Amino acid sequence: MLDELLVPKGRKVRLDTLPTDAMLGLADKVDGQAQLAKLRAEISELQFTLNAEGKRGMLVVIQAMDAGGKDGTIRQLGPALNPAGVRIAPFKVPAGREAQQDYLWRIHAQCPAKGEVVIFNRSHYEDVVVVRVKNIIPEERWRKRFKHIVNFEQQLIDEGTEVVKIFLHISKEVQRIRQQERIDVQKKNWKFRLGDLDDRAHWDDFQLAYGDAISKTSTANAPWYIIPSDRKWVRDVAVATILRHHLLRIDPHYPTNGDITPGLTVV
Amino acid sequence: MLDELLVPKGRKVRLDTLPTDAMLGLADKVDGQAQLAKLRAEISELQFTLNAEGKRGMLVVIQAMDAGGKDGTIRQLGPALNPAGVRIAPFKVPAGREAQQDYLWRIHAQCPAKGEVVIFNRSHYEDVVVVRVKNIIPEERWRKRFKHIVNFEQQLIDEGTEVVKIFLHISKEVQRIRQQERIDVQKKNWKFRLGDLDDRAHWDDFQLAYGDAISKTSTANAPWYIIPSDRKWVRDVAVATILRHHLLRIDPHYPTNGDITPGLTVV
Repeated sequence: MLDELLVPKGRKVRLDTLPTDAMLGLADKVDGQAQLAKLRAEISELQFTLNAEGKRGMLVVIQAMDAGGKDGTIRQLGPALNPAGVRIAPFKVPAGREAQQDYLWRIHAQCPAKGEVVIFNRSHYEDVVVVRVKNIIPEERWRKRFKHIVNFEQQLIDEGTEVVKIFLHISKEVQRIRQQERIDVQKKNWKFRLGDLDDRAHWDDFQLAYGDAISKTSTANAPWYIIPSDRKWVRDVAVATILRHHLLRIDPHYPTNGDITPGLTVV
Repeated sequence: MLDELLVPKGRKVRLDTLPTDAMLGLADKVDGQAQLAKLRAEISELQFTLNAEGKRGMLVVIQAMDAGGKDGTIRQLGPALNPAGVRIAPFKVPAGREAQQDYLWRIHAQCPAKGEVVIFNRSHYEDVVVVRVKNIIPEERWRKRFKHIVNFEQQLIDEGTEVVKIFLHISKEVQRIRQQERIDVQKKNWKFRLGDLDDRAHWDDFQLAYGDAISKTSTANAPWYIIPSDRKWVRDVAVATILRHHLLRIDPHYPTNGDITPGLTVV
């Protein structure tokens, strides 16, 4: 499954040519849920060990168009993760001091400590996508950022952080359905902003900008994965498969403890 | 169940007179697990609503003797909580800048934002217990802290935070068994420090200091609960029952959204 999702370094990505509704070899939703339960159990054990080891960290960047499923993806990871070793860092439009610093300043501040898994709900990739589509800064400035980002992530990796980047890819029609639901269903109203319709009007520009950003920043060490996300249960299995894979790549171990000597007995 | 666990304002607590192995009306472990599954589902929905509402927060303080089950209690809450709305704040021996500030400074910095549930793994209560047992500061200093703490927590409450404090109460024999396991089982080695045996040697002093701190800081608005925690499954049901109760007290609601007008249609 991973080969289908991975963006190899240097590949030119055009999102409009990539499927949003693929099944990734899963038979049906029941099959998907069975897979997910197994993956969660494995992730749980691996993350607990990573936390116990306390040497390396993992950063998971999640990006998507509005209603792409960022919040839902994070929520469904709850049962797989020990809250003590995981932190969710959401990034909104920069405000206050954040807006006075360079765009990576607030990002760096939220990066994982040793033993920690941190999930970014939006990230520094907004700073090469939104600013471009909305013409907030000139091209000569955002174009330099691809290189900054690759270098920044490589520094994190060199110092012991596993970096994984996930784009949840939905169709324009599924976005329409989900946005309309947010308007029509009272319990979902809180997720809606008028600005979301504005962004939707720039659908093609966003897709192009995301494709370009992904192409320019997917590396062997900090790869992007593009997840067909029209079906939430396919998306959840895919994301869990990726997390499991990268936790296995870290290969954490329970540490030895110098305080413990042979025959030590509690009285 | 809650009445059995709650410490009413003004009650003098002596931990050595309180049970560590009560069943709290649960028939057996199977019964406990069934209760827990139901409680988790309710907590999940309530916490999600609290987060959506974005107006109030909840602070859960967890204290215990070493091996009392703080980490295990937090881990088992994972399946009940959306990681996006919860944050675990562990407090170790103050170091660096923390040690240069007053003892509530680092505590305040970790308090819940609107919509957030924060769980303290250890807390400012170490600053009236450990410092007292180990004679780190003079009595005239730590004795004033009970009042500081009550006032500090009341300010949090007045500004929209629900405050809940939980003491996981184990027997000295259960502590022995668990500490020995940490020495004997490789996967548990990382949890052990030689200092834990030192603290165990001061068991009675710690129990007295905790009892006193709980007596002096349990209020109607920021109550302490003492949980018999020799049986992990009883402890987990009790903690979930308390969280559910306080989330219901907050009574969060999905907010209305001024961006939504009648007939608004996504195209």
